Amino acid sequence: MVENFDEWFHDILENANITDSRYPIKGMAVWMPYGFQIRKHSMNIIKKLLDKDHEEVLFPMLVPETELAKEGIHVKGFEDEVYWVTQGGQTPLNEKLALRPTSETAIYPMYALWIRTHMDLPIKYYQIVNTFRYETKHTRPLIRVREITTFKEAHTAHATKEESDDQIQDFIKIYKEFFDDLGIPYLISKRPEWDKFPGADYTMAFDVIMPNGKTLQIGTIHNLGQTFAKTFDITFEDKDGEHKLVYQTCAGVSDRVIASVISVHGDDKGLRLPPKVSPNQVTIIPILFKKGKEEVLAKCSQIKQQLEAKGLRVELDDRDIRPGKKFNDWELKGTAIKLELGPRDLENNITIAMRRDEGEKIELPLDDTLADNVMELLDKSQNNLSQTAWNFKKEHVKFTENLDEITELVEAGNVVEFYWCGDETIGKEIEEKTGYDILGIHGEICEGKCIASDNDARYIALIAKTY
Amino acid sequence: MVENFDEWFHDILENANITDSRYPIKGMAVWMPYGFQIRKHSMNIIKKLLDKDHEEVLFPMLVPETELAKEGIHVKGFEDEVYWVTQGGQTPLNEKLALRPTSETAIYPMYALWIRTHMDLPIKYYQIVNTFRYETKHTRPLIRVREITTFKEAHTAHATKEESDDQIQDFIKIYKEFFDDLGIPYLISKRPEWDKFPGADYTMAFDVIMPNGKTLQIGTIHNLGQTFAKTFDITFEDKDGEHKLVYQTCAGVSDRVIASVISVHGDDKGLRLPPKVSPNQVTIIPILFKKGKEEVLAKCSQIKQQLEAKGLRVELDDRDIRPGKKFNDWELKGTAIKLELGPRDLENNITIAMRRDEGEKIELPLDDTLADNVMELLDKSQNNLSQTAWNFKKEHVKFTENLDEITELVEAGNVVEFYWCGDETIGKEIEEKTGYDILGIHGEICEGKCIASDNDARYIALIAKTY
Repeated sequence: MVENFDEWFHDILENANITDSRYPIKGMAVWMPYGFQIRKHSMNIIKKLLDKDHEEVLFPMLVPETELAKEGIHVKGFEDEVYWVTQGGQTPLNEKLALRPTSETAIYPMYALWIRTHMDLPIKYYQIVNTFRYETKHTRPLIRVREITTFKEAHTAHATKEESDDQIQDFIKIYKEFFDDLGIPYLISKRPEWDKFPGADYTMAFDVIMPNGKTLQIGTIHNLGQTFAKTFDITFEDKDGEHKLVYQTCAGVSDRVIASVISVHGDDKGLRLPPKVSPNQVTIIPILFKKGKEEVLAKCSQIKQQLEAKGLRVELDDRDIRPGKKFNDWELKGTAIKLELGPRDLENNITIAMRRDEGEKIELPLDDTLADNVMELLDKSQNNLSQTAWNFKKEHVKFTENLDEITELVEAGNVVEFYWCGDETIGKEIEEKTGYDILGIHGEICEGKCIASDNDARYIALIAKTY
Repeated sequence: MVENFDEWFHDILENANITDSRYPIKGMAVWMPYGFQIRKHSMNIIKKLLDKDHEEVLFPMLVPETELAKEGIHVKGFEDEVYWVTQGGQTPLNEKLALRPTSETAIYPMYALWIRTHMDLPIKYYQIVNTFRYETKHTRPLIRVREITTFKEAHTAHATKEESDDQIQDFIKIYKEFFDDLGIPYLISKRPEWDKFPGADYTMAFDVIMPNGKTLQIGTIHNLGQTFAKTFDITFEDKDGEHKLVYQTCAGVSDRVIASVISVHGDDKGLRLPPKVSPNQVTIIPILFKKGKEEVLAKCSQIKQQLEAKGLRVELDDRDIRPGKKFNDWELKGTAIKLELGPRDLENNITIAMRRDEGEKIELPLDDTLADNVMELLDKSQNNLSQTAWNFKKEHVKFTENLDEITELVEAGNVVEFYWCGDETIGKEIEEKTGYDILGIHGEICEGKCIASDNDARYIALIAKTY
């Protein structure tokens, strides 16, 4: 699949019932039932992590032009890709309404109303919504789309800069836990000045290396400083009676999370889903002959109940087709564990378990230990997928001190680490010379030389071919 | 609250942290954290009911003009209230895109692709999405809005008319269970011909009587026959090899469900939420004095854990404010049960439980029986709220054989039952004469006379002042 990853990705979406791109608007696809379930279980993980300390809300989808236009730097970053509603019924609207490209300008006018004193702070809200970008580049399902159907955006406001910096660290911790549950390995970096979020003081980003070596940005965290607070006049009365501007952060993940969970773990047979997000963690496949058919099916139902009682997601595939076809179907769909049960197994009081991640077959006794044994296999599967993905990542980050070597390393499917002085002009020169993007810096150093200048190196930077 | 229900409703949304209507677009409001939780628990109930037999999917929000315009009757019903996107970035779009007012025209072109043979049927998909209506009437949060943020729409396709009629009955059953869980009493009727869904063969509707006597449509179920199948060419190859058109149904509920759960149960002190949708089923309020403060708080935490272990949603209100203020806050927010615990209670090893629905105070021992006792109170509270609401409904449906009496009865806050011949001209005359709307028919009869003509009565019909 590495050789023709784009094709593999395109096919798996259709074959595994994830999305259908034949919807009659370019860059907008339908979430099919199986894909929707993967999406749901993934979102449930991030919701649970956020709900500990954030509150879920829901803002309107449309933003009045006057609000969107207020923050100059921000609107500059989005004006070429905003969809505009100009007509209601047969009537032209008095004011154009934007389909939110992101919700800062929808949310912050309300923060200005809600925040009065230091007692109202911090505010930590999030929402999971659809957002829109009029992409002119080539679109690709879940990766570069015109309707982002699954945009988790969190927006916080704080009394001090320190608290906002701490919030950035909190978000990093939350995203780490989230991606760890999905078995997605990440590179964390601070984006260069010229690639930060429009309006942010600084941007931290999570990238994943896709099977073809290109990196995909899967999470971003922005310290907005007081930029938006100034624009939208978000102030509070502090303990000392003074009126001050708040400090803000925001953080987002999108459909790309699903794109990466599919891509990072998949293989030539199809999906390999981490049990934590697999719609069917266990699929039971009865092997039926005329004789003993009913007994086998009855036992399969009983196993299903037994496992579901432990909170597992279980499918019993009793379709009237050949078992071999069922095996292929469920390998394609990435069910974590298949349990096979035929008349002879029933006689021997066993079932044959097969892990999707590494194909090993194991006999499990059909007794009280079954659920525990299955859960142990699920844990192993989850850990193995994660470990394999992290190993791939480690093997594909290479360090060089030689500018000319970057191209060779990147073209071989790697992300490249190099020493950088941090100077913007030099950075852009490196990008131009290589044709790749600097992801950002992910470490500070106090010795060594910049790869592209006589300056002392200050950072370890990352460069890659990006989506 | 009956006297000034509109004001009560407006105030409760703001005071109980449900929605904020100050968003700078008329008819579009923000779901606040507490309101969002009520919405979430309500949607979880309908999802669970649908997931037994339907699959959740997600379609794009925009619909190309050509698709929307295909079904003539349908588009006629919506053309005055569709928002149109005409511009992407700085560029006019080649084709206008509609913000979905409902998703038939988004979904059915895909059904035409997916359905090939009778093996593909039935299809039963649903989604929960935002939809848009450019309302020119006076808007009202959750009741008449321009962004319906919570539109649950199910769409099914079947091989035969019989199956589609059965599906209508299934939806009625599902909605009954749903509204029963919310303690919302309903009137079910078949809408008159002139008030059915644009494109439907017939429409079944659920209405609730609001405290001011007006009815609110809270759920609709449509048998679409083959209208859309013809328009979008949705055919299948039957067992006999013949190509046939499918039969379709669709069914929807919206934000109005939340409007009614708030309104039906609320009282002068605020919300009274049925435990099944209450964000905080139990709120623990410590009564603190300097002495024994820590012991009381420790016990409260322990109670919280004990109840949460049973799956209950519990809040411990340890804010540093007077208990009286807390009591008022939680009466406003409609927590189903408050548990009060002071130092003397701790000594006596008891807590004082107070049900929000009827105010009774009960001593509960602080031992292993607590969780069961609390759950019993929650059940009683759920049933009592439901019973009270159903009683209100029964008292407010009146029968008359006298056309002139309708006005008096409706103005006194009732829905009126009457005999009707079923003739459209007569029906519209009745509406015109009274100024109210015929909800529809909810019973057939074979004796009696039509209230407004010399014809024999065929139906028991309902008429009301409607939202």
